[in-house]
Amino acid sequence: MAMEGYRGFLALLVSALLVGFLSVIFTLIWVLHYREGLGWDGTALEFNWHPVLVVTGFVFILGIAIIVYRLPWTWKCSKLLMKSIHAGLNTVAAILAIISLVAVFDFHNAKKIPNMYSLHSWVGLTAVILYILQLLLGFFVFLLPWAPLSLRALLMPIHVYSGLFIFGTVIATVLMGLTEKLIFALKSPAYSSLPPEGVFTNTLGLLILVFGALIFWIVTRPQWKRPKEPNSVLLQPNGGAPEGVEASVAMNFGNMDKSDSELNNEAAARKRNITLDEAGQRSTM
Amino acid sequence: MAMEGYRGFLALLVSALLVGFLSVIFTLIWVLHYREGLGWDGTALEFNWHPVLVVTGFVFILGIAIIVYRLPWTWKCSKLLMKSIHAGLNTVAAILAIISLVAVFDFHNAKKIPNMYSLHSWVGLTAVILYILQLLLGFFVFLLPWAPLSLRALLMPIHVYSGLFIFGTVIATVLMGLTEKLIFALKSPAYSSLPPEGVFTNTLGLLILVFGALIFWIVTRPQWKRPKEPNSVLLQPNGGAPEGVEASVAMNFGNMDKSDSELNNEAAARKRNITLDEAGQRSTM
Repeated sequence: MAMEGYRGFLALLVSALLVGFLSVIFTLIWVLHYREGLGWDGTALEFNWHPVLVVTGFVFILGIAIIVYRLPWTWKCSKLLMKSIHAGLNTVAAILAIISLVAVFDFHNAKKIPNMYSLHSWVGLTAVILYILQLLLGFFVFLLPWAPLSLRALLMPIHVYSGLFIFGTVIATVLMGLTEKLIFALKSPAYSSLPPEGVFTNTLGLLILVFGALIFWIVTRPQWKRPKEPNSVLLQPNGGAPEGVEASVAMNFGNMDKSDSELNNEAAARKRNITLDEAGQRSTM
Repeated sequence: MAMEGYRGFLALLVSALLVGFLSVIFTLIWVLHYREGLGWDGTALEFNWHPVLVVTGFVFILGIAIIVYRLPWTWKCSKLLMKSIHAGLNTVAAILAIISLVAVFDFHNAKKIPNMYSLHSWVGLTAVILYILQLLLGFFVFLLPWAPLSLRALLMPIHVYSGLFIFGTVIATVLMGLTEKLIFALKSPAYSSLPPEGVFTNTLGLLILVFGALIFWIVTRPQWKRPKEPNSVLLQPNGGAPEGVEASVAMNFGNMDKSDSELNNEAAARKRNITLDEAGQRSTM
């Protein structure tokens, strides 16, 4: 299916992948070259898994999960497959985020450093809890076929919004975490003298911010959304699976760029119990 | 003009105003009660203007400027008036942000503390520079009547996106700034023992994050946008000022929730040189 402004999309997607990948590489170089390396022994080696897993899972993989419906090559795939990929990526990200928390709590406990005193920890733990709730809500309401249409329609805008809010909050939390770590770790030479590690890790922070900016741009362009079926299909007699109907309409309710006329069309289609061909349904994002 | 979900809008608006106002009050209590107070003498008193001015201007006033087109009581006002209010609020916010930078540079220079070494300073200065560019772009392209329609149409989505991106980046920068200041300032008792000032200022950080969340929710609900005129008005003969047409179409192009049919309608209306009544034009947000 043709995408409007395909070359622009491709350029931004490649940029996002590149910047996201670079962020992960920079984080690895940071902990392996400038810091103590990686291990699982209650020392700084274990702490260092915290930034690596957060940037890999909670930034990069979550960012990709957010835009996965927008990849035009997937528009021929069934909505259920795409939802499974979206849910799968988010599950991986959530597991990495949870292991990253275990690493930092283990390290703190071994070193008798207090837990949960910093703004970074308050905001970060809130983000992880919200993310797990978001994942459970997504799984039970949108992936499993049992939730009623009205519930999906009600919750989809919240699901879309809170996904983006959590992603933005995670990036803010990462920037706070880098700030904390650089102040604590860079003593001689001090962070304030801007040693190579300071420049390198500040650059990592900027890369993560740019990755977030690219993901937000890609996901808020209306012309790059998974297209809905043309109206002719809307008015065809029922030929799809019930799962397809529910998912489609619920997803459409979640669209940020829905016009009133589209909503009315959908409401009318729903009343007539008419369904869409699952392959061409419009996506959340 | 009636607004869909008016009570919900009102509840969220009041919440945003309350949380935003509380953020400013908390910042004042922080610097006046927990820190050294306010002054302009190169000491910490001068530094303390930095958080006060940033939270007041670059968070609270900028947040209000973002949602000002969505207030239903303003939908009877002319678009030019609303753009002037939007620009005026952003100008005040930019001036406060610039004074806040002067305060912190003055303080650093007087105390021989290096400038621009931290991730907070890199991201913060980037945000201020982008904000000034955004303000200049908005002034010359959207407020002054001379920019061609095509330029407005091209730049409006970028203007909307970068406004929201700058707002989110500012909030992330504030959270980094609070983190830095608490680590530097809280020594005995240390930040890690979570003294009252730590709890209080972490709470301030959460309030600012919640304020951002409320503004982002309000500004991304399609049903709370300044409504466009009904199609009947679209097809009336030319009766508005040229400024009105350009602004309207450009603004419509910037809408995140524009459907193809709306775009086609507008293109057709433009070709027929038909204008909208300025009072009822649809807003950017």
